[in-house]
Amino acid sequence: MSEIRTLALACKDAAQIMFGLDTQTKRKLLHDMADALEAQRETILTANARDLQQAAAKGLQGAMLDRLRLDASRLTGMAVAVREIAALPDPVGLVTRRETRPNGLEVERVRIPLGVIAMIYEARPNVTADAAALCLMAGNTVILRGGSEALHSNMAIAVALHAALEKHDIPVAAITLIEDLRRETMVEVLQLTDIVDLAIPRGGEGLIHFVAEHARVPVIKHYKGVCHLYVDASADETLAMNLLIDGKISRPGVCNALETLLVHRDIAASFLPKAANALQECGVELRGCERSRALVDGMRPATEEDYAAEFLDLIIAVRVVDDLGMAIGHIQRFGSDHTEVIATRDENVARRFVQAIRSAVVAVNASSRFSDGGELGLGAEIGISTTRLHAYGPMGAEALTVERFVVRGHGQVRHPQSARN
Amino acid sequence: MSEIRTLALACKDAAQIMFGLDTQTKRKLLHDMADALEAQRETILTANARDLQQAAAKGLQGAMLDRLRLDASRLTGMAVAVREIAALPDPVGLVTRRETRPNGLEVERVRIPLGVIAMIYEARPNVTADAAALCLMAGNTVILRGGSEALHSNMAIAVALHAALEKHDIPVAAITLIEDLRRETMVEVLQLTDIVDLAIPRGGEGLIHFVAEHARVPVIKHYKGVCHLYVDASADETLAMNLLIDGKISRPGVCNALETLLVHRDIAASFLPKAANALQECGVELRGCERSRALVDGMRPATEEDYAAEFLDLIIAVRVVDDLGMAIGHIQRFGSDHTEVIATRDENVARRFVQAIRSAVVAVNASSRFSDGGELGLGAEIGISTTRLHAYGPMGAEALTVERFVVRGHGQVRHPQSARN
Repeated sequence: MSEIRTLALACKDAAQIMFGLDTQTKRKLLHDMADALEAQRETILTANARDLQQAAAKGLQGAMLDRLRLDASRLTGMAVAVREIAALPDPVGLVTRRETRPNGLEVERVRIPLGVIAMIYEARPNVTADAAALCLMAGNTVILRGGSEALHSNMAIAVALHAALEKHDIPVAAITLIEDLRRETMVEVLQLTDIVDLAIPRGGEGLIHFVAEHARVPVIKHYKGVCHLYVDASADETLAMNLLIDGKISRPGVCNALETLLVHRDIAASFLPKAANALQECGVELRGCERSRALVDGMRPATEEDYAAEFLDLIIAVRVVDDLGMAIGHIQRFGSDHTEVIATRDENVARRFVQAIRSAVVAVNASSRFSDGGELGLGAEIGISTTRLHAYGPMGAEALTVERFVVRGHGQVRHPQSARN
Repeated sequence: MSEIRTLALACKDAAQIMFGLDTQTKRKLLHDMADALEAQRETILTANARDLQQAAAKGLQGAMLDRLRLDASRLTGMAVAVREIAALPDPVGLVTRRETRPNGLEVERVRIPLGVIAMIYEARPNVTADAAALCLMAGNTVILRGGSEALHSNMAIAVALHAALEKHDIPVAAITLIEDLRRETMVEVLQLTDIVDLAIPRGGEGLIHFVAEHARVPVIKHYKGVCHLYVDASADETLAMNLLIDGKISRPGVCNALETLLVHRDIAASFLPKAANALQECGVELRGCERSRALVDGMRPATEEDYAAEFLDLIIAVRVVDDLGMAIGHIQRFGSDHTEVIATRDENVARRFVQAIRSAVVAVNASSRFSDGGELGLGAEIGISTTRLHAYGPMGAEALTVERFVVRGHGQVRHPQSARN
């Protein structure tokens, strides 16, 4: 048996134990995990210093290097996040529906853990603790495959988490960190169809495409967020301006930032020059259609690629549309099923927008930046799904479980003629 | 663009229209589909006669030929099934949760259709109408790829269904029947990741393995049902006997039939000889462990393969176990995550069984044969998922939808400091 299969099988065996844990025990376990992270602070920071040094030597810099960096305060933040996850409602055991059938059978739908979850992610070492805590809180075990830059940090974090598992007599394989970072080993994990119940890739488009291409296990993908704001003719202009600035400026590098502004032609002459002005003051480059360029000086023409782009930067594509239908058509063509926003005072227009748009999150008069597990009330998120299956949009603990059927009877059979009472 | 891609894209475009249809319209559409099936009875039966003739010429016989056969009464049954689906509660638009966040945002979880569903199935032509009706009732469109034996029947059924779509000005591509049955064409469908939201293979293990191996789109698998009955020491013996006979005899060829009987050693001497006798009277062959063979004359020894087998036949594997833990261990090792049953009068044992078993359906004192969408209250089923993701167990119309987020605000932004009120 290959080494990776042996590791994964141990993780699957541990899933049987996690499957049966009650809420109280899981919460204690997560608190011990948080305590262990703090207790092993020095070891983790030393390991992180080694990663930082190697990364700097390889020429990593700026935001990339910053995402890799841990310090005392970030480590505390990591422990706090784990304790917050411990405080979440436990989705496991939740009875979502209960029905008594005409023959007296009691049929319940009950949430159970998925089993073994493989997280494939990139540089941020805090994902190691976050993902492990969320997977375990939902009764699962986890195979973690992080980026090579963070390997020593991740290993030190795993050592701390394992100490907590041991305290509860749970096999450390419940949190299995893959230290062999060769691509072929990742592919092997992604093809363990009899062991891995779900793979969640988190990172750049390249990583996600690689995982989607090579996986034989189910994958929930987190593709790009090409988020739109449509400013309807009936919009409150100040409100629309606030959604625009918050969506584009407050954190342009994240997936729920706005990438395209669609403006109804009846409000364009009034709204667009002011909007362009405000955006430009914040250093945003605008790329627009002909009609928007006629209203704003010095706007560069937008190409089809611009409308399809996730800029993740201070750039926004702009288009004046004839009506709601044209706005919807644009989103259907260029959107990425992530998050779309409408600014309108017309209830009817809002309803039609919500009904026609198939994205994971659709917001009426609220910023796209709320498309986030914490903001929407999930408590924590393991990612944002753009796969329209199982989970769609921000995924919390509940998305790491599934409903199954529990049936209770008193001897009912389907074909009573074969019974021998 | 390949021909199949063109067809699939038309199906995706039609999904935009289906997405917006209200319940009333969908119900009328399904009733018109049912009427059209009956109106075109002669054409469909003629096409079916042609399929039957070719199948017989190819040497198909017995149950296989029978599954392919349509007659006036089966066609009526098909239309009735479509009308029953039309009467189901519409899952689309269902608000499953509603919460007002501290900042006043109203967050709803609302069910929407998945989009385009690819059904890959084998000989039974009634699946064509069933699957189309269920997919459309849940607001989806469907790509149907049936077996070659039923091609003419399926084409005639599709013509009837298309007549109903046209009556409602819905593109006929909403029900796209693939007539090119080459394997490479099926593979192409299974790799249209930008078009197909879900593939559901229904048929033998070979087909399901083929689909799982070649798909790049999400797949919900319906693998085998190695269903267990565990007769606890505390079981009511008559009740246990009824579950055993119903589970093994009433329809041995289906996935929710029993394949293995586990008996607690304390009840084995009393229960097993009677059970063996009753099973043998019904023509069932028993294959057992040493301890069960010591209690029953002429029982053939069971191999590991027998314990892992989905016999789909009048054969049952038998094992005497020391206790509940050994029964659970056996099921964990040999089960297929489908359906497991316990017969017990001990609430505590029942609870431990339900908590330890991860199968899609777990039944206490009720027959495994209830593991069926209709019997469990789903109204109709598109299959039974053994994939622990999205849906697990019998899948009805709701399993063809997904929850997304609808957020309503009055101008909330995430970083108010950037707002310009």
